[in-house]
Formats: sequence, structure tokens, C-alpha cells
Amino acid sequence: METKKTMQNILLLGAGRSATSLINYLKSNAEKENWHIKIGDFDIKLAEEKAGNHPNTSFIQFDILNEIQTQDEIAKADLVISMLPARFHPKVATACVDSGKHMVTASYNSQDIEDLSDIAKSKNILILMECGLDPGIDHMTAMEAMDKIHEQGAKLTSFKSYTGGLVAPESDNNPWHYKFSWNPRNVVLAGQGTAQFIRNGKYKYIPYHKLFSRYEKIEVNGLGDFEGYPNRNSLKYRKVYGIEEIPTLIRGTFRKAGFCDAWDVFVQLGVTDDTYKMEALDEMTIRDFFNAFLPYDKVKPIEEKLCDYLGLEMNSETFKKLKWLGIFEDKKVPIMEGSPAQVMQAIMEAKMSLEPEDKDMIVMQHQFEYELDGKKYRLDSSIVSKGDDQLETAMSKTVGWPMGIAIKNILNHNINLRGVQIPTKKEIYEPILKELNTMGVQFNENIIEIED
Amino acid sequence: METKKTMQNILLLGAGRSATSLINYLKSNAEKENWHIKIGDFDIKLAEEKAGNHPNTSFIQFDILNEIQTQDEIAKADLVISMLPARFHPKVATACVDSGKHMVTASYNSQDIEDLSDIAKSKNILILMECGLDPGIDHMTAMEAMDKIHEQGAKLTSFKSYTGGLVAPESDNNPWHYKFSWNPRNVVLAGQGTAQFIRNGKYKYIPYHKLFSRYEKIEVNGLGDFEGYPNRNSLKYRKVYGIEEIPTLIRGTFRKAGFCDAWDVFVQLGVTDDTYKMEALDEMTIRDFFNAFLPYDKVKPIEEKLCDYLGLEMNSETFKKLKWLGIFEDKKVPIMEGSPAQVMQAIMEAKMSLEPEDKDMIVMQHQFEYELDGKKYRLDSSIVSKGDDQLETAMSKTVGWPMGIAIKNILNHNINLRGVQIPTKKEIYEPILKELNTMGVQFNENIIEIED
Repeated sequence: METKKTMQNILLLGAGRSATSLINYLKSNAEKENWHIKIGDFDIKLAEEKAGNHPNTSFIQFDILNEIQTQDEIAKADLVISMLPARFHPKVATACVDSGKHMVTASYNSQDIEDLSDIAKSKNILILMECGLDPGIDHMTAMEAMDKIHEQGAKLTSFKSYTGGLVAPESDNNPWHYKFSWNPRNVVLAGQGTAQFIRNGKYKYIPYHKLFSRYEKIEVNGLGDFEGYPNRNSLKYRKVYGIEEIPTLIRGTFRKAGFCDAWDVFVQLGVTDDTYKMEALDEMTIRDFFNAFLPYDKVKPIEEKLCDYLGLEMNSETFKKLKWLGIFEDKKVPIMEGSPAQVMQAIMEAKMSLEPEDKDMIVMQHQFEYELDGKKYRLDSSIVSKGDDQLETAMSKTVGWPMGIAIKNILNHNINLRGVQIPTKKEIYEPILKELNTMGVQFNENIIEIED
Repeated sequence: METKKTMQNILLLGAGRSATSLINYLKSNAEKENWHIKIGDFDIKLAEEKAGNHPNTSFIQFDILNEIQTQDEIAKADLVISMLPARFHPKVATACVDSGKHMVTASYNSQDIEDLSDIAKSKNILILMECGLDPGIDHMTAMEAMDKIHEQGAKLTSFKSYTGGLVAPESDNNPWHYKFSWNPRNVVLAGQGTAQFIRNGKYKYIPYHKLFSRYEKIEVNGLGDFEGYPNRNSLKYRKVYGIEEIPTLIRGTFRKAGFCDAWDVFVQLGVTDDTYKMEALDEMTIRDFFNAFLPYDKVKPIEEKLCDYLGLEMNSETFKKLKWLGIFEDKKVPIMEGSPAQVMQAIMEAKMSLEPEDKDMIVMQHQFEYELDGKKYRLDSSIVSKGDDQLETAMSKTVGWPMGIAIKNILNHNINLRGVQIPTKKEIYEPILKELNTMGVQFNENIIEIED
């Protein structure tokens, strides 16, 4: 006979769209695990809606800037999940440390949080960061594969990893083969800065204006051709993954084939710049907006100027993508003031948002090369996850489920690590990947022997 | 019989290289004007050296971070010149306002300083900013020409202005036709951000990575071919110059013909980036450094990779410039750690510094277009100033003399404007330009009627 578990209180802060799958996971485990889930959001209607008509949930209006409320609510919980904007995580973490409560997020770790690690250990609590998709599942699957490679006594020589939040093939009906399944602003600004990685023992630096012409072509089994461009900082993952001596390490972003060449047009023009406000936007058409980034010419139309300026052909796939997005149209610019990047975001949101019936898709691929007994091998390991609809998106599931599973294992004492952690240790990634596997988030692996 | 003027005390803060010509100007006027010039620098040896053996000078060790000393010394002066780094100007200006003393600088005005304007007026003092070369002489000569154009009843339709700090033809012995006559760091970082201007009523924005391929070719009388690329923000000068409705306004920088194409190679590679520290610089040769910005290739040498990557020819003038600078050499990188821009600066300083016998040269050109009585005219107005040697450089003279002349006219009550000013008003620019003219800093003007 199973004894009923002691009730444990989970406090979830932030009930936005990205929390959907996490909340559904928690609800579906709540009775068996004897959890009470309190959902707090600044928008109490949203908290109420997400709590729904479920016996194990409650909801509150929650304001992270109210210190007394923050302390009180955290003191009443056993574990706190922060889905708040990342800048608020240090506040939540500090209150968790003060009250001795575990905390879980899907956001990047930061020095502010890292600085709390010793005191978190002394309070016997875990602050688990980066436990979503990317960062999150990428760490877990990479570490699982690398731990296996190292356990065989093999020597890892190369690790490349790409992740993309894309649109599922059945909903892919535009020439960019892209729709926003995540924060559109971040998509417009993606890659700004300098990509830093190491390849065959040589450090490589790619400035933003060269990034989208230096992608790799990568085929993913059954899904066709993709392009992978390097993310901003791959070098720091040598330390994170404990592979300081690896000659090749590249982490990057996936887009469908053809995307990068077309996106590069925007980068070259300068329309993804978010550092200044444009003049007189309220008097501009979309055509005027793009003309502002092209050289002056007394007679040439902007279509011709653009092709001359960037070496494009009018019958190219890239030009078709630009035309489909409406960059030559005499319509009013969709916002009255803002930066070029904000204008671009508004133009794209009107054309590239997920429709209600659309499904998104996450594609992740790790490529490892290693040497074992004098032979060289390549292991490709890829994951493809599709959304159910506009709410239970692949993005929401792959961000939410790892957190949900982590929470269950923390509260059940299967994960007993303490201090500030990210899911690179077997104690954390093993139970999460095992359960994700039962939920349809599976890696497809392929090992081949390679020539030098 | 002339009565001797009352002695007035000038306090000069910052005695670096750029103060040389200013100090010489002040000394040569000191007896007649009955000035005492106190020179303060953190490096007292430098202050002593600059004060020299002159009856009207003294020197002190001066620390702008010492508030008591700052207040005391400013209280004892009648006028204060700040040649300190620009970030210290607000401290100096605040103390000047507190003590009711005039202040003169050659640096850009800022909001912090501008905010002191009302109180400066109430204290009956002038804070004169931007009274050097660029900013400075550019404002004065532009305003003089525009005031004349407007006084005729003409309508100004276009104003383009370019200034360059270059090397004089007799000292020009490298394929870049360039040597550092000013802060090398600023030269390496020049143009970063987005150039913003207006042309034929259309706003234009050029991102940094396109700036050095969108220059204009400009001939300067007798000096040959130049290239002018737009400076970061031309738009704000519509208000500064009171020409809000002008359809074309571009301010830019001059380089000798061929410079921009070669510099663009560095921009395209990303080696002028100052936003991150490079890894393992201490193990790199200059050749390795440049290779870090080129795509990986198993067999191609970097000369070939560079040409393929950027569409260069090995027998081009650009390639010769790169080779001359030593970018393919297997020498150690000259600094052990730093950003790409810092490495570039060190590489260039070793090859492009002024030699003791070298002369520098300032070239400035204004191009105005205006309509008068139904006809269209173009006025080109250019200034060329050469240095005497490594100390009395053209840069030092054209920065220092306008300040010196302004100071004389302030102390003699010929300039009676109060509050925060830049030299755009006739009361300021007229006496300065008149005296500069007698010192050999002369504008060469040329008006032609033009077709539409």
C-alpha cells in the first residue's frame, strides 16, 4: 500500500505563454505527487486562467517589486519557479536563499546568481538554472553523449551543436520557411556582436556583418536542408562542459536552407540596428524605410539599387523572399517611431506570426567527433519536436517539461545536488532525459566511422 | 600713451602634446596682454617643461580629482582652459560656474555642460566649448560662409563638409598616405556606429560595415584626390547651424585616395572591434591574428583566403597596403592581451607614427550649394594647414590657436556672449577667423554657377 506523500507547495512566478506546458505538466502530476501549485502573476486574470479549475492550484496577484510579498510567498513555498523576465531572477534567488527554498528557472545563469552558490549550499538548497531547451536540453543531451564517449575511453576532438525554433513542415507556407515561435525581438537581433569559437585548434571570430554568409549547410534526417550559423560565444562552453582541450567547439542556430542569404540582406542594409531612433518614420512608407539604407540615385528604382548594392539577382530566391515580405510596398511603416530593428520586427510580425492552427518545431543536432582505438568516429544526434497547436508549442513543451521533471526529482530527493547548478551533471540530466524520452522528446543517434 | 592692462590670470589644465601651440600662442601674447599663465598637469615635469623659462608663466602639480585644489586654483584664475580628457570637463565647468570664471575647451559640448548654461549666464560667465579644429574651425568657417549666403538673400540647398588630419605630401612615404597625427585609438575606432545624414530630402543611414565602401571622391585644389566618408551624426548640425530645412547635409572625414578601400578590409574582417578581449594573443603571430578572422581552410594560405573572402586581387593597391603593414608576417603580435582594435592600433603605431622630421597636414573642405535670383551656385571653400614639425603640428596649431584667440577676445571684452556657447555666432567666429587668417590659416574659396 502506497502512503500518501506529504503535501509540498510549488510557487510559480510568471504565468505567460511560455509557462503553458510547464503548468500542464505540474497539474497532471499534482495529485499523485501531492503538490499544491500557486500561480502568481502581475496580471491576476492570467494567473487565474492558468490555474484553471483544478483542485491542486491557486492563484495570486504577484508583484516582484513588492519585497514583503516576495518574501512572504517564497517563505510559504517548498520550491519556487521563476518564469519572470531574467532581470528579476537575482531578486527571486536572494529571497529563496534567505528562506532556504529551492529555485528552478530556464534562463541563463549569471554572475549575480552564481555568487549565491556557497550560501545556497550552506542552506541546503538547489538553485537550478538553464533547465529549459536552449539553454537546457542542449546541455543535458550534450553531456549525456560526451559522458558516454569519455566512459568508453575515447578522445573527443570536435563538438558542434545547433538548435532552431522553426515552423513545422505542415505549417510551412512562406518562402522564408520561418515563423516566430519565440520572442520576435530576439529573432531580429539574433547574432549581434561577434561569434567566437574554436576550430581545429584555431580561434575564430566572425563579426555580425559576416555571420549570415558564413553558415554551414547541414542535413537533418528526413527534414531536408538546414543552415547553421555560430552563436555569439561558444568558447565559454569549454569550461561549462569540462572539455577545455577540445580543438573544435561551435554552438549555433538552425534556420531552413535559404534563410541566411536573405537575412544577410537585412544585416548588410543595417535594418536590424537597434541603437538609434529613426527620423520622420511617421512620414515613411515601407519602401521609403528600405530606401533610407540604400545609396542615393536620381533615377534607379530601389529594386535595382538593392540588387546593385548587394549583388543580388531579381529572379533569385532571396529577392522573392524580400518581395514576399513586402519591402518594396508603398504602405505606411507599421510603427510611428523607433529603431530600424523595431520597424523590422513590426513588418515581420505582420507576415511571420504563427496562425492559430500552425505548429512549430524544434530541431536540435549535436555532431561529435572522437577517436577510439586508433579509429575516428562521428556521432550525429538529433532531436525534432513539434508543437500540438499555438499554445502547446514545441517551444513551450521543450522549455517547460525539463523544468517540471527537474522539480519532481528535486522534491522526491532524486536530485540532491546543492548550490547553483546547470543541468550538466548526470544526477540532473539522467532522470530528465529519461522521462522526456517517454514524452516523445527523443534523440535520434547515428554513428559512423570517418576518414581523417 | 598706452596704459598697461590689469594683469589677468589664465589657468591651463592639462599640458599634453595637443596643448603645445596653444601654450606658445598664450606666451607670445602674455606680455602685451599682461597675462599670467599657470600651467597645471598631474605630471609636474610636463607642466614645468611647458611653462619653460618665461616671465609670465608658472606651473603646478594638478589633480582634477582633488576637489579642494580644483576649487582653489579656479578661484584664483580669471579664465580656465581645460585640455583634460573630456570626461573631466563637467567637473571643471561646475567649479568655474561656482567661482564665476570663464572656461574654454576644444572638446564636444555635452548635456552635462549644457545644463550649466543658465547658471553660467546668471554668473556673467562664458563656457566656450568646441573651440578647436573639428569641432571648432569647421563651425566657424561654415557659419561665416552660410551667414554670407543668407545675407545675400540666397537659399542654401546643400552643405557637405569634410575634415581630415593627414600627413603632408613631403612626409608622405607610405602606401596608405596616412600617419597618425592624433589619438591613434580614435583613428582605429573611427566611424563605428551608424552614419546618419540627409541627402536631397531623404534620410540616409550607413552602417559601419558599409561606411568605407560608400565614400565620395573629392579633389582638393593642388593636393590631389581624396575620399570623404560620412561622420556618425550629421543630422544634429541642422539645429546647431540653424538650417533645419536644408535638403542635404553631410559632415565627413577626409582620407587620401585609396585609403577607404584598404581600411574596409579591416572593417570587413572585424579587426577594429573593441568590444571583447581575444583569447591566447600571447601565443599568436600577426599572421595568426588575421587568420582568426578568416574562414578555416585546410590548405589555402591566408593571402589567398583573404582575397577569396573579400574579393581582392593580389596585385591590387589595397593588397600592397596590407602587405606593407605586415599583416602576413610571422612576427609576434605586439601586445599580450586586448581587443582586436587594440592589436590593430599597436600594429599600426609601429608603422604609421610621425617621424621626428615629419609634417602633418589638416585638410578641410566645405561645399555649399545655394539658389540666388533663379540661378544655382556652388561654393567650395577649403583650408590646408601644415605642421612645422612633430611638436608644432598642424593639428596642435589648428586646435590651439582658435582657443588662444578666443581667450584674448574674451578677456578684452570683445566676446561678451554668456552661458554655454559653441563658436557659431559671429561675435565669436569673426575675430577668431580674422586673426587665424593673419597666421596663415586661410580659406581658399571658389564659386561657380551650376546646372540643375
